[in-house]
Amino acid sequence: MTSRKAVNILITNDDGIYAEGLFALKSALDSVGAVHVVAPDRPRSASGHSITLHKPLRLSKVRLPDGSQGYATNGTPSDCVSLAVLDVIGEKVDLVVSGINWGPNLGWDLTYSGTVSAAMEAAIMGIPAFAVSVASYAEDVSFDYAARFSLFLARLLLKHRLPPDTLLNVNVPNQPADHIRGIEITRQGKRRYTGKIEKRVDPSGRTYYWLGGDTAIDELEEGTDVRAVADDKVSVTPVHLDLTGYSALEQLRTWGIEEFEIGSAAP
Amino acid sequence: MTSRKAVNILITNDDGIYAEGLFALKSALDSVGAVHVVAPDRPRSASGHSITLHKPLRLSKVRLPDGSQGYATNGTPSDCVSLAVLDVIGEKVDLVVSGINWGPNLGWDLTYSGTVSAAMEAAIMGIPAFAVSVASYAEDVSFDYAARFSLFLARLLLKHRLPPDTLLNVNVPNQPADHIRGIEITRQGKRRYTGKIEKRVDPSGRTYYWLGGDTAIDELEEGTDVRAVADDKVSVTPVHLDLTGYSALEQLRTWGIEEFEIGSAAP
Repeated sequence: MTSRKAVNILITNDDGIYAEGLFALKSALDSVGAVHVVAPDRPRSASGHSITLHKPLRLSKVRLPDGSQGYATNGTPSDCVSLAVLDVIGEKVDLVVSGINWGPNLGWDLTYSGTVSAAMEAAIMGIPAFAVSVASYAEDVSFDYAARFSLFLARLLLKHRLPPDTLLNVNVPNQPADHIRGIEITRQGKRRYTGKIEKRVDPSGRTYYWLGGDTAIDELEEGTDVRAVADDKVSVTPVHLDLTGYSALEQLRTWGIEEFEIGSAAP
Repeated sequence: MTSRKAVNILITNDDGIYAEGLFALKSALDSVGAVHVVAPDRPRSASGHSITLHKPLRLSKVRLPDGSQGYATNGTPSDCVSLAVLDVIGEKVDLVVSGINWGPNLGWDLTYSGTVSAAMEAAIMGIPAFAVSVASYAEDVSFDYAARFSLFLARLLLKHRLPPDTLLNVNVPNQPADHIRGIEITRQGKRRYTGKIEKRVDPSGRTYYWLGGDTAIDELEEGTDVRAVADDKVSVTPVHLDLTGYSALEQLRTWGIEEFEIGSAAP
């Protein structure tokens, strides 16, 4: 699959190839360059940054609503990026956009998010990337504003360079354009879950468990992604691949870890 | 499953309930408190921080090599932590240790790692946690030194408090004790993969793909995890759940993102 257009954009998601948000994103970005679609063949939400090393991956051609061709895979969002960049597109990829996700990716959601992890994979490969989500699980979510903002941001990312090993995580309130109160560059906030598990018994009498269904509790600190979205603003967070807890480094050095007697561990 | 011992330790991994490293860890920690084992029923390497929201989870009792009882789940390493803390253990969990992983978790491996993600899940729940790996895929890997160091670190973590939202990621060289050259508190380094995909054809003539098999290229900067292990040192990295790229915040503010015309997105 090659193209004569100058700019190659890959879009993927974790809601699957048939998700409305994916196609809204494609339609918005078509004016920027050749948009290649490689997405999971089914929803892969909360898949984290998982990659598929233990089984073969398949690619299937899929007809998108505008008649163009996309590819569905049995892999994760990160796998889609690998397959697209290393095989499907067959030329340099200039930008990877993951979304538009149905549901927020705020605070600690980031580490769980398949949407964000696809953009991480791109950043690891040195390709400019952002993830974009509409921060609502409402049935009648509108992708319109998020799609227009994605077009704006895609153009910016093709013009400017992100710092190395950095991607952007965008969350858009589920509001009509005239209710959105601005755009804010934010840091990652805190979103705690109450931690819920439901224990049930199946018709054969065996116990099973459902995770999820718990309530997110946001700490609405000024300057964070969770606060911006709560204030009906679009949140744009730079995400870095270095997870080092720098502030903990010095404290750890006072614990005597480095004095562990090597001899004491000898058999 | 309750215990009268004062300290409750959960161990889990991503190599599965029958992995040698898991049992080596259990044996080492038995002297510290009640060790509860809840682990995936099969290898879940590279599962990232994925959680299972779309299907029910099952727990099965498993007899461990020392005759004690553990639990296997069909979920991910993170799911194991949720199930154990919210249901199986039934009392306060004081420490979560994930490992001992067979293979390194260095540099950018962190975001892919099921081992590290289990410790992340514990940190999100506010429980002290570390992940521990032997940095080798050799068949004859020895978990002995890593197990002894884990015992040392477990005792330290029960005595000191980690900063909030922080876990530790430990990598141990695959060396006999007398070849290990020290313990180093490190930051996360860079480990690039060449990005490899193998395209094959199945007996029915259909194409399939294998990811992986590519070579890790380490940037051996002083003070990093990849460098410490290359120098035959044990690496201990504090990992924080805040992924914000702080150094990128100011640069992004010069791009004019916040000036996006809200009206321009109106339908």
